[in-house]
Amino acid sequence: MATIFTKIINGEIPSYKIAENENFIAFLDVFPLKEGHTLIVPKREIDDYFDLSETEITQMALFSQKVAKAIRMSFSCKKVSVTVIGLEVPHAHVHLIPINSMDDCNFSNPKMKIEHNRMEEIRRMICEKLTN
Amino acid sequence: MATIFTKIINGEIPSYKIAENENFIAFLDVFPLKEGHTLIVPKREIDDYFDLSETEITQMALFSQKVAKAIRMSFSCKKVSVTVIGLEVPHAHVHLIPINSMDDCNFSNPKMKIEHNRMEEIRRMICEKLTN
Repeated sequence: MATIFTKIINGEIPSYKIAENENFIAFLDVFPLKEGHTLIVPKREIDDYFDLSETEITQMALFSQKVAKAIRMSFSCKKVSVTVIGLEVPHAHVHLIPINSMDDCNFSNPKMKIEHNRMEEIRRMICEKLTN
Repeated sequence: MATIFTKIINGEIPSYKIAENENFIAFLDVFPLKEGHTLIVPKREIDDYFDLSETEITQMALFSQKVAKAIRMSFSCKKVSVTVIGLEVPHAHVHLIPINSMDDCNFSNPKMKIEHNRMEEIRRMICEKLTN
């Protein structure tokens, strides 16, 4: 069965898309820890991030860097954190979160619920900072 | 002033070294969240992970993947998590942690203190799994 991320990639589930190329997609996490919390997902459905091929893992690092720099410019934050856990959805993904404290990327914290208009605003803000 | 990681790279501070090449080093975190908790550090002293060059970030991804696969083979774990936070030491670094639950990579948890002999044993165990 297709993962929830594959359904997003295929457009079966709507998403706040930040960027996309042939092999990867970036969209806002709808259960964010902070505003701007973004997921980077390879289109190929693979469970373990470290089972990506060498080509895929390097392409994903470059794609993530581009998106992370746009997030960094969009928020008043000290850093953009990177987290790969992979115990919930069996489809490798990287979390990028603009942070000012370590607690901002603590996955034990309750998730935020951000209303649609604000999510769309955040999406546009990050997209405007993206360079090609 | 040199960061603590640069002092480790220069051999001024001892470490449980896992792997090293021209540009990167991997060693056990001496304040680990779990046994096998490893740090990947670029030898170039740069604060923000996303300010690494494209070449550096891709090389670091490949170096990390190699080490992560060795960690994965060394422990009974579901995944090896990846975390970049970067608020404490101003020298970019990636945490790799063998995990069985989300809480295993929660940086709010108290750090472990593992005695020297066991750290050395863990180091050897991971090194034996490393392929070139």
